[in-house]
Amino acid sequence: MSKSKKNKLRGLLLGAGFVAIAAFIFTGCPSQQGMMDRGDAAQKVYVAPGDHDEYYGFFSGGYSGQLSVWGLPSARFLKVIPVFSQDPETGYGYSEETKPLLQTSYGFIPWDDSHHPHISQTDGDADGRWIFINGNNTPRIARIDLQTFETKEILELPNTGGNHASSFVTSNTEYVIGATRFSIPYEMDLDVPIDSYSDEFRGALSFIEVDPESGRMEMDFQILVPPYNYDLGRAGKGQSSDWVFFTTYNTEEAHTMLEINASRNDKDYIAAVNWKRAAELVREGRGTTMDAYYYHNYYEGNQGIAINDVKDQVTVLTPEDGQDFIYFLPTPKSPHGVDIDPTGEYIVAGGKLATVIPVHSFSRMLEAIENRDFDGNVENIPILNYDTTIAGEVQDPGLGPLHTEFDSRGYAYTSVYISSEIVKWSLDTFEVVDRIDAYYSIGHLMITGGDTKNPDDLYLVGLTKTAKDRYLPTGPKQNHPAQLYDISGDRMELLLDFPTIGEPHYAQAIRADKISGNVAQIYEIEDNDHPYAIDRINQNRVERDGDVVRVYMGSTRSHFRPDNIEGIKVGDTVYFHLTNLEQEWDVVHGIAIKGANNSEILVAPGQTKTMKWEPKRTGIYPFYCTAFCSALHQEMQGYVRVSAADSDVELTWKTGTN
Amino acid sequence: MSKSKKNKLRGLLLGAGFVAIAAFIFTGCPSQQGMMDRGDAAQKVYVAPGDHDEYYGFFSGGYSGQLSVWGLPSARFLKVIPVFSQDPETGYGYSEETKPLLQTSYGFIPWDDSHHPHISQTDGDADGRWIFINGNNTPRIARIDLQTFETKEILELPNTGGNHASSFVTSNTEYVIGATRFSIPYEMDLDVPIDSYSDEFRGALSFIEVDPESGRMEMDFQILVPPYNYDLGRAGKGQSSDWVFFTTYNTEEAHTMLEINASRNDKDYIAAVNWKRAAELVREGRGTTMDAYYYHNYYEGNQGIAINDVKDQVTVLTPEDGQDFIYFLPTPKSPHGVDIDPTGEYIVAGGKLATVIPVHSFSRMLEAIENRDFDGNVENIPILNYDTTIAGEVQDPGLGPLHTEFDSRGYAYTSVYISSEIVKWSLDTFEVVDRIDAYYSIGHLMITGGDTKNPDDLYLVGLTKTAKDRYLPTGPKQNHPAQLYDISGDRMELLLDFPTIGEPHYAQAIRADKISGNVAQIYEIEDNDHPYAIDRINQNRVERDGDVVRVYMGSTRSHFRPDNIEGIKVGDTVYFHLTNLEQEWDVVHGIAIKGANNSEILVAPGQTKTMKWEPKRTGIYPFYCTAFCSALHQEMQGYVRVSAADSDVELTWKTGTN
Repeated sequence: MSKSKKNKLRGLLLGAGFVAIAAFIFTGCPSQQGMMDRGDAAQKVYVAPGDHDEYYGFFSGGYSGQLSVWGLPSARFLKVIPVFSQDPETGYGYSEETKPLLQTSYGFIPWDDSHHPHISQTDGDADGRWIFINGNNTPRIARIDLQTFETKEILELPNTGGNHASSFVTSNTEYVIGATRFSIPYEMDLDVPIDSYSDEFRGALSFIEVDPESGRMEMDFQILVPPYNYDLGRAGKGQSSDWVFFTTYNTEEAHTMLEINASRNDKDYIAAVNWKRAAELVREGRGTTMDAYYYHNYYEGNQGIAINDVKDQVTVLTPEDGQDFIYFLPTPKSPHGVDIDPTGEYIVAGGKLATVIPVHSFSRMLEAIENRDFDGNVENIPILNYDTTIAGEVQDPGLGPLHTEFDSRGYAYTSVYISSEIVKWSLDTFEVVDRIDAYYSIGHLMITGGDTKNPDDLYLVGLTKTAKDRYLPTGPKQNHPAQLYDISGDRMELLLDFPTIGEPHYAQAIRADKISGNVAQIYEIEDNDHPYAIDRINQNRVERDGDVVRVYMGSTRSHFRPDNIEGIKVGDTVYFHLTNLEQEWDVVHGIAIKGANNSEILVAPGQTKTMKWEPKRTGIYPFYCTAFCSALHQEMQGYVRVSAADSDVELTWKTGTN
Repeated sequence: MSKSKKNKLRGLLLGAGFVAIAAFIFTGCPSQQGMMDRGDAAQKVYVAPGDHDEYYGFFSGGYSGQLSVWGLPSARFLKVIPVFSQDPETGYGYSEETKPLLQTSYGFIPWDDSHHPHISQTDGDADGRWIFINGNNTPRIARIDLQTFETKEILELPNTGGNHASSFVTSNTEYVIGATRFSIPYEMDLDVPIDSYSDEFRGALSFIEVDPESGRMEMDFQILVPPYNYDLGRAGKGQSSDWVFFTTYNTEEAHTMLEINASRNDKDYIAAVNWKRAAELVREGRGTTMDAYYYHNYYEGNQGIAINDVKDQVTVLTPEDGQDFIYFLPTPKSPHGVDIDPTGEYIVAGGKLATVIPVHSFSRMLEAIENRDFDGNVENIPILNYDTTIAGEVQDPGLGPLHTEFDSRGYAYTSVYISSEIVKWSLDTFEVVDRIDAYYSIGHLMITGGDTKNPDDLYLVGLTKTAKDRYLPTGPKQNHPAQLYDISGDRMELLLDFPTIGEPHYAQAIRADKISGNVAQIYEIEDNDHPYAIDRINQNRVERDGDVVRVYMGSTRSHFRPDNIEGIKVGDTVYFHLTNLEQEWDVVHGIAIKGANNSEILVAPGQTKTMKWEPKRTGIYPFYCTAFCSALHQEMQGYVRVSAADSDVELTWKTGTN
């Protein structure tokens, strides 16, 4: 960038009054203090061929809409799990089985912005059964099964605009939470002027119940709250495990140019919600049922086809329904993260425009509530006194503290965006004890085993926003970086710097042995209840019902049956139902057909997947196996003949007779 | 897998007569011979934070349809470049600018299977200007610009079924080649029985001219050839640089169960084509023009919107048009790869069912042609004598040799699929000098600087097909592995094992300094000729033309202008034309709108991208920036009000007045 351009930008930003941001922009290359000795670092991150990593890392995809899986400490990229976005690689969102997962009250949506993965918990510890992740744009929560590493369920959230404070679970996964980042009118489809914001718009906090056996989610209730932006949330731990906490910004209730208009108040709030009490009120019938329209998509049994369960009601609570389940903690200034330490005592805010890191005390909060020590209320939500609940303020934390995680030794680690560093501080003294640069503009961070009662003390991953010169250049947009730090000693030490996929807004890492032993290697063919599956290769056939043709196809190394099909006509809708009859781990077949307006389908051992094809032109169409499956993979092909709509070519299929 | 299942599979496979494949299946975990000392290996692959890799590695995506970029030797994943498949992460194939790239004669296709990346060459050396890659399923070739790392052009190939022997370039990128893997009838849309194969089906070899300045491709001519499967191809080097070579299998002309029916002949052919002579014949008017229907999609100037150029003719040559430009070299047995050594003298086949690696001599081939030493012909293509052209056969190469690359010291390295190993042999003695295990079932391999006149001698990457237990398990389907070997010494040594993206069928690695200095950091806003761009923020506006509403929107840190829009109606088609006015490297903005049946658009500095939105329901729709761009990124949001189709709400827009 030329100097004149830099100056132009500087002027533009100073003009807007954001000196701090300008400071960020002109961050050069920080010195490499805290960089471990090269040899030691190399050894620490090296996982030899054939050896396994110590941790699974689950990184949100951000604007990719997916969840990516990494091995740590090697930073091996293991897999992308498609969640909210179409994935041509696997046929997710293209196959008939998976398309229903992406249905919403707005129709089929091929994309979302996935932010915060959270592993299911038992007694405050990650249990490795499922991982939840939120869709921010068209508000949803997804559940991924960690036996198969597949998305099994997506629930849409009504009354919500931007589900950002999500998808965090309570200590025994009783609930997974969501909340409005952008307040909107509650009444469905209400057409009102945008400047009716304060009157007509509302926020909503969502409490989704999770079935302890199946993991199935159900919207239990929502709490209607003032029209602020609810930014992030976390459940309490131990003593505070009946509570969840949400940060707010835009208590100014601005609806335009929030950059300025939502940055005026010195303090916004943390909303503290006693979810157990709120649930009791709902059980007592204190909530109201209101009209709503949202989709709940999931798999039922072993049919392997996602279904749509369309909902038309939701139970809502307002603060008036009981004045004992939601409180506001004043917190400086447009806070972002809200993080609870492993003991459940400290509620740490990332006051992104604040000059300190404010730390609230849960026990003081309870005491103030007990004493009804309030400073008024907003719409029946009691406001606590900052001085009463605050346990301490971390001084000199750098510019723009965002997120905090904790080790087991009483230290907290906060990402600081504008000054681009990680700050380690003591939960005992609230004093900074170490700081280290991040490359560049760190947003989020995570600690192995983090956001549980029992974090591990080994590694911290910083998720930074701008790569610039960190790696070989790949054009005007570089992938977002991550940095791996060793936090086992007194000082943080930088081990590794690696680009990620999409834009990870949060990540969780779990000890590998909590998952690896339960991972499925195949789908048992005898359990395959797909209505169009075949369970033996000689059941292959083609059936016509009017314009609909169904190909019941099987794959084994190295052929499809059938592999020659005639009698398809222009105007037909053809479904290729491919059952992969392999029963060996990682032996996958795929099928693609020339000219199809669709992705391939990729079929794991024992699964059935369906590709819809509507041929528009007569002719001969080759199809083939898309996954190199055997020495004779190249020979795994076939042909379909498509005739004119009025043709009398008979429907026939065969394999093997040349 | 249980023992009984193993036995079941064994029976199934032995039943089919493929002992060799069964042998592969029961490959356990090979011993780690050739594994470098752990400490040395760790040091060799460690690229410290802030340091850059020595090589760019470009890995095909296979069934992902994309191209991924890796740093070597660290195996850092740098980026996915979307090519043939929709990419929700970047809006590729969803934005109005990029959708035309995925148009074909079959309509819009969201996916393909990308196989063989090949970097443009000057004088036989990779020059780092562009990289080409083929789409196998709906036959196409794409060109990616290595200044911006973006797909700039896609050309569909007529008369082709499965463009697998592609997209290899000649020594000065005069041509990029393609070929039919699945022969099909030439006559467009011809409806004939599949068993008319030998009469009605034909192969085609495609020669696409590349403009030396712009890189723009044009279909120059096709050569019509017998209905075999044309598997892989390569251009000659140095002395043989006027020639290209293609392997064939299925000279049996089978159209069903090729696993058996196409594996009968002891020898198939390598087709040797003198492209310079063929091009002369075309210039002399010896070709024929035939009807065809195919799309050529590219960007023109700096408008930033891909256009569709629909073609209706192609020039074809048949062997009868001159008997001096195409020859068949008999080659055992269903050969896969055909690779030319750096001197251009040796033509090495991967005889995938052969017991040897056959090596033809280019000079002997020329001599035999000169002497008209032929063993008959097929459809006017002279067949050379195996004994005349063969320079040697590598004995005991393992089971299933597939691909070969070369170092500069006279050694060749062949991937061997069934016995899952890499075999190093001497081009002098044709003797195996080293072998090393691959994990598991190696398909392809590449050497840094490979397939050029001047390969580097540092690293070899093996691209294997099955991960199984190599990494932490991630379900019934694991990502495909790659292994990095040090080949600088006498013995190959395994350094690293890392999972890849999609299924890489080939990769190329180039010295980083051949590309890195030319990479664009921004798009210059003054060069942005997009018809809906704005070049200053105060040009933002909203315009209605009938049912079409165009939002001319600008983004800077940390707001959109406009950010409040009213007067949109149900039934409108709304185009958000977002110009990112940033002019700083890696400062990206994105936009998403709640409920849109589309992906986000992600906009690099200086670019304009367009999201189409057809709101179906009235109400208030939040939109926001999807890329964490600044300390006040969370505040970068806005609202659109959608009214009923018959509403009289006026079209208005604003920013900043609350």
